[in-house]
Amino acid sequence: MSMSSMDEDTNENTFKILVATDNHIGYLETDPVRGQDSFLAFEEILKIAKLQQVDFILLGGDLFHANRPSRPCLHRTMRMLRNYCFGDRESKVWIASDQSENFGDIAQANYLDENLNISMPVFSIHGNHDDPSGVGNLSALNLLSVAGMVNYFGNSTSIQDVTIQPILMKKGTSKLALYGLGNIREERLHRQWRAGHVKFTRPEDDGTPNSWKNCFNMFVFHQNRARHGPTNYIPEEFLDEFLDLVVWGHEHECRIFPEHYEDFSITQPGSSVATSLSQGEAAPKHVGILTIEGGNYNLEKIRLKTIRPLQFMTVVLSRVESVEPSDKNSIRVYLEGVVESLIEKAKNEWEEQQGQDSGIEPCLEMPMPLIRIRVDYSDGYETFNPLRFGQRFIKRVANPNDMLKFQKTRTRPITDMTAT
Amino acid sequence: MSMSSMDEDTNENTFKILVATDNHIGYLETDPVRGQDSFLAFEEILKIAKLQQVDFILLGGDLFHANRPSRPCLHRTMRMLRNYCFGDRESKVWIASDQSENFGDIAQANYLDENLNISMPVFSIHGNHDDPSGVGNLSALNLLSVAGMVNYFGNSTSIQDVTIQPILMKKGTSKLALYGLGNIREERLHRQWRAGHVKFTRPEDDGTPNSWKNCFNMFVFHQNRARHGPTNYIPEEFLDEFLDLVVWGHEHECRIFPEHYEDFSITQPGSSVATSLSQGEAAPKHVGILTIEGGNYNLEKIRLKTIRPLQFMTVVLSRVESVEPSDKNSIRVYLEGVVESLIEKAKNEWEEQQGQDSGIEPCLEMPMPLIRIRVDYSDGYETFNPLRFGQRFIKRVANPNDMLKFQKTRTRPITDMTAT
Ligand SMILES: [Mn+2]
Ligand SMILES: [Mn+2]
Ligand SMILES: [Mn+2]
Ligand SMILES: [Mn+2]
Repeated sequence: MSMSSMDEDTNENTFKILVATDNHIGYLETDPVRGQDSFLAFEEILKIAKLQQVDFILLGGDLFHANRPSRPCLHRTMRMLRNYCFGDRESKVWIASDQSENFGDIAQANYLDENLNISMPVFSIHGNHDDPSGVGNLSALNLLSVAGMVNYFGNSTSIQDVTIQPILMKKGTSKLALYGLGNIREERLHRQWRAGHVKFTRPEDDGTPNSWKNCFNMFVFHQNRARHGPTNYIPEEFLDEFLDLVVWGHEHECRIFPEHYEDFSITQPGSSVATSLSQGEAAPKHVGILTIEGGNYNLEKIRLKTIRPLQFMTVVLSRVESVEPSDKNSIRVYLEGVVESLIEKAKNEWEEQQGQDSGIEPCLEMPMPLIRIRVDYSDGYETFNPLRFGQRFIKRVANPNDMLKFQKTRTRPITDMTAT
Repeated sequence: MSMSSMDEDTNENTFKILVATDNHIGYLETDPVRGQDSFLAFEEILKIAKLQQVDFILLGGDLFHANRPSRPCLHRTMRMLRNYCFGDRESKVWIASDQSENFGDIAQANYLDENLNISMPVFSIHGNHDDPSGVGNLSALNLLSVAGMVNYFGNSTSIQDVTIQPILMKKGTSKLALYGLGNIREERLHRQWRAGHVKFTRPEDDGTPNSWKNCFNMFVFHQNRARHGPTNYIPEEFLDEFLDLVVWGHEHECRIFPEHYEDFSITQPGSSVATSLSQGEAAPKHVGILTIEGGNYNLEKIRLKTIRPLQFMTVVLSRVESVEPSDKNSIRVYLEGVVESLIEKAKNEWEEQQGQDSGIEPCLEMPMPLIRIRVDYSDGYETFNPLRFGQRFIKRVANPNDMLKFQKTRTRPITDMTAT
């Protein structure tokens, strides 16, 4: 479905939702080079949502990078939300479920509060970075919630018995049950799930009229998808077959195009800022425009333009003909060439990134790219100081000091162990 | 003017303003006994403002006790503001001044924002406790401001040249110029003021129509009033004679009944929670209902009912007949009697406090009182451990561990040096 035809098809029976996750607002906020990245990306997402006139934005957790975001970070985020989400625009989405069950401290979705004029509601679960903590067990999302800026849901009150109550949404003839579960400690949730203690409340079990029996069932959560150990992830097969679409947060690689499993599909939007220099974070970053009508859905992906280029590469020195194991200089010269080629590649991909027809203005200037080369120096190759190596790339690369990562063994696990 | 007659007189030409200051929300918030005090008092103030249907609330700084209020503190404050200040009620107060000059980051008073339904606006300057700091030079009030909950004003951008632009407010035929200045380091402001670098912009100098020439001029600020050293306070004579009424924040003693100086009056509302156990904090705590019509004003004081009783007393042992200098036990027995009498006094005053006709329900139970006895033990009197002394008053006194303060000299300065 092309974007233009989708616009025409969008009608009063079609939910239109922007899906995004892991914005990690405030990541490296004091860094003179990369400090703005997380804010710019989040603002671009808000702009896209506004241009697309979505019914709402759905976020999959880790909105903030820090559990206690700094005051400037919180302030800037709130200002963006106030700028983009407040205004005149009547929502056609009704909520049929008990909102005091759905939304913890403010027992009402912001756009249904008569005292707030919300043009674009945001619904969010928490991630592991912005999970509830401390006195009162509050998340930074609670501050946005009490300010009427975000509808924070999916905060399971019991860890013994995880019961997930959906937000039942109705737009025209379409019905959507939106299930959410904020991040829970990985092993714990795995065990509870395996033991059958994770339950999805179905509308019909809840006394909701039978007409909800055939609603579209969507689930957003924030856990490991990649296996980091026997119980340190949630296997896809745990997910209930009644679900139609799962929005998987926490994993930073953008695999937003829905992947089909037994009875459902998974969309993994990925992060909007790279918090590690890994292969996964180097994939082009998108948000999704999800449309749902009756039992059908469509997801259109939109590439973000503000994302700083990230080039990731693995070099196995023993496979490079031009270098000698004991000749540091030959290795250095070779790797300098690799960096140059990656900068060039970043430029080309940047052009492509800016050429996307998302309605967002292209960025005037390419930000300095992030470069990461994993250098396998097994078989007796020399190494040298990556910091000194980076000196000549200052002002050309965003991370001159840590471009090179020397690693000896090739037998590292495939999944990236970085916590996201 | 009695309260009932005032209600009748309040009309479309009369500003009705609740004035309060130094709420120190979050003070001792983790203390099991006193943790709720600051919240309860602030909520009572909001209730009174709502009952009185004031046009707005004016706060004189130190809304928060901590520069970086804890998440629970911020959350609870925001929830209260959302509960009490949002709702349907059209304001008849117009703002004629440039709001982008008046209000820093959000260039508009919240109640004039079409996206917010504000029934009761709050205007506040910052104090020394909640002053701007850190990256972006933000105050906790900026978070409330961007959330549309408080109209934060009086944050002078330059310290070299303090120019105070009023908020020009009009209600019917009455005109009010509200000047505000958030706390500035004491000595610095004193010097600047003395050197003539503190300027109040008068409406007529600003191109505002001449009709503003006879407006009511009010100034709210937050500095030492008591002399703490040659330049460590602002003398009343610094204040410009064009002012009609000055609302003095920072000083915690309630001297809310306007005191007349040369050409103007000063109202000092005092804190709504005792942050030190001093004579000043022991005075009954009130907020004011200020009415302004044309050039006239009236201030009605309303006693707060939720305030924990505080009894302060000085005992000079050498003047007590029943005690012997070397007889610790006689001193202890005497002071125990003093504590008992102060508890009794607290009970009597509590009844009086609860009997006030403010429209607020009396508190069901008296909270344990705060007791502070300054014991002058000059002339060779024995002292003992105040902590052990307090043991028998646990569960009867809020601060059993520090009721007694032994002091040797009688020649201490009259003003309390505690920073407020
Ligand atoms: Mn995460
Ligand atoms: Mn993440
Ligand atoms: Mn103060
Ligand atoms: Mn104070």
